[in-house]
Amino acid sequence: MFENLPEKVTIREVGPRDGLQNESQFIATPVKKEFIRRLVAAGLPHIEITSFVNPKWIPGLADCAEIGKEFAQVPGTVTSALVPNAKGLEGAKAAGLKEVSVFMSASESHNKANINKSIAETLRIFEELIPQIRQAGLAVEGMVSVVCGCPYEGAVEPRKVVEIAKTLLRYGATAIGLGDTVGVGTPLQVKRLLDMVIPEVGKDRIRLHLHDTQGTAVANAVAALELGVTHFDSSVGGLGGCPYAPGASGNVPTENLVYTLHGMGVKTGIDLHALLETGAWIQDQLGHPLPSNGLKAYLGRKVRAEQKATAAAS
Amino acid sequence: MFENLPEKVTIREVGPRDGLQNESQFIATPVKKEFIRRLVAAGLPHIEITSFVNPKWIPGLADCAEIGKEFAQVPGTVTSALVPNAKGLEGAKAAGLKEVSVFMSASESHNKANINKSIAETLRIFEELIPQIRQAGLAVEGMVSVVCGCPYEGAVEPRKVVEIAKTLLRYGATAIGLGDTVGVGTPLQVKRLLDMVIPEVGKDRIRLHLHDTQGTAVANAVAALELGVTHFDSSVGGLGGCPYAPGASGNVPTENLVYTLHGMGVKTGIDLHALLETGAWIQDQLGHPLPSNGLKAYLGRKVRAEQKATAAAS
Repeated sequence: MFENLPEKVTIREVGPRDGLQNESQFIATPVKKEFIRRLVAAGLPHIEITSFVNPKWIPGLADCAEIGKEFAQVPGTVTSALVPNAKGLEGAKAAGLKEVSVFMSASESHNKANINKSIAETLRIFEELIPQIRQAGLAVEGMVSVVCGCPYEGAVEPRKVVEIAKTLLRYGATAIGLGDTVGVGTPLQVKRLLDMVIPEVGKDRIRLHLHDTQGTAVANAVAALELGVTHFDSSVGGLGGCPYAPGASGNVPTENLVYTLHGMGVKTGIDLHALLETGAWIQDQLGHPLPSNGLKAYLGRKVRAEQKATAAAS
Repeated sequence: MFENLPEKVTIREVGPRDGLQNESQFIATPVKKEFIRRLVAAGLPHIEITSFVNPKWIPGLADCAEIGKEFAQVPGTVTSALVPNAKGLEGAKAAGLKEVSVFMSASESHNKANINKSIAETLRIFEELIPQIRQAGLAVEGMVSVVCGCPYEGAVEPRKVVEIAKTLLRYGATAIGLGDTVGVGTPLQVKRLLDMVIPEVGKDRIRLHLHDTQGTAVANAVAALELGVTHFDSSVGGLGGCPYAPGASGNVPTENLVYTLHGMGVKTGIDLHALLETGAWIQDQLGHPLPSNGLKAYLGRKVRAEQKATAAAS
């Protein structure tokens, strides 16, 4: 156990997109920019900065063109954005981005609810879109949602995930994202899924996107890590809730993942202290507590230190 | 990986003691009793019900005699209590309990801060106390705190934990509790600790007490599970904070652990739905939100279902 852990993993911070799009209020563009700048300064190797979607769908990301342009090229940090279609790709290209993600679900009902198309219809669109992205010189991740379970259909067959992943690779995807979008997976389930996906996709092309709805995300990441997965999504403070359960935890908090990885001797290139300060900062900007255990502990230790200092001074 | 998981594990619910003693207000005795009754009904196989300590130290558990008497013998459920000394043992015996825990720390500073004695002084007391407990016909767990790290000293040598555990077994302890009291351990650290402790203590006598301060508790439990540990402490809702960081997460939430174990095919005998309802109930009684991911998700799904029902009716 833990004898062949990877030396280094890449964490993609999805707070600015996946996190902020779940906020009920519009986050001002200067706040988003400062947030991304602080994440870059904390050493995040990859940041999902926005989504080039119709602002009618996601009004919170209506400033995608401006954010995209500002952070299309950041020395030492990969930046990427979601694109749902050819129009989104135009936006990403105009901004100058070098990597995008297309997304779909492994279950019919979730795909229908999320993008109002069947899986077959979505794949037909991607059959054109992915080659266009590649021809434009961009890398493209095919992100597959609800790989561990669907809020409408329940269990999702790993076979179904493998089929979609293989199809997306055939179209030209350069990476495959596997999203436990509802956070229902357990380490055994993640292992069984990866045992089927890794031989077809290759572990270096897999990106695991975990949610902490049931408190299993770090355990799931550790199981994947032991199977050789080296690319994980997360969001600082655990930004971004679960649309199926108001108030529930969202993405695995970046600081929980970084704490665990560093504690196990796996490098991330991230400055944990700067990351926690960034979490504290964005929490202040949003004006409500974020769910992350690690952030709460950090802020609690600060409170305790201040109490001690006050007691000592009086 | 995960090929030799145990078929069944025992979860000890520590909410009524470890959880409630961290509440700032006194929890009324009838509420405590109803809480324990609900936990019994949810199928918890083992419940830590109270602590026979001087009420000057822990005023919140001043009703230990009454709680102890009421729940000393519960068919199908093991109940136990903490006892710090011979006076506590008298209380537990008078109540009719069949199992108690004595506790100390693996670091000098934490032991001093917690029980105002050196480790050597504590062991001298236990050298008398543990045989007295056994002679009275009670089982006794020797609980060792801060096994993964100390808030005052930092790193704690696994060798030190092994030494103390062996000494407590020699005195007559029937089980050894290993407490990651501050919640600083990672799965690799837990593995390294257990690799040293298991050969000396035997995996069947180990009870792992994990805190979720950094979001690592379920991952740590899964690592221990794979090494054959089958006894875990947890608290419903994640009751009980961290005294070193106000607002930080406390014990690993029972529902997160049960969700994970059941999802991995490991039996607990616990009814997860009844457990979540118990978590919702005690949260209402306490009047503040509990940190558990699983409980938040459960309550969020309820809110969403009610919203849908209201929308359908209007």
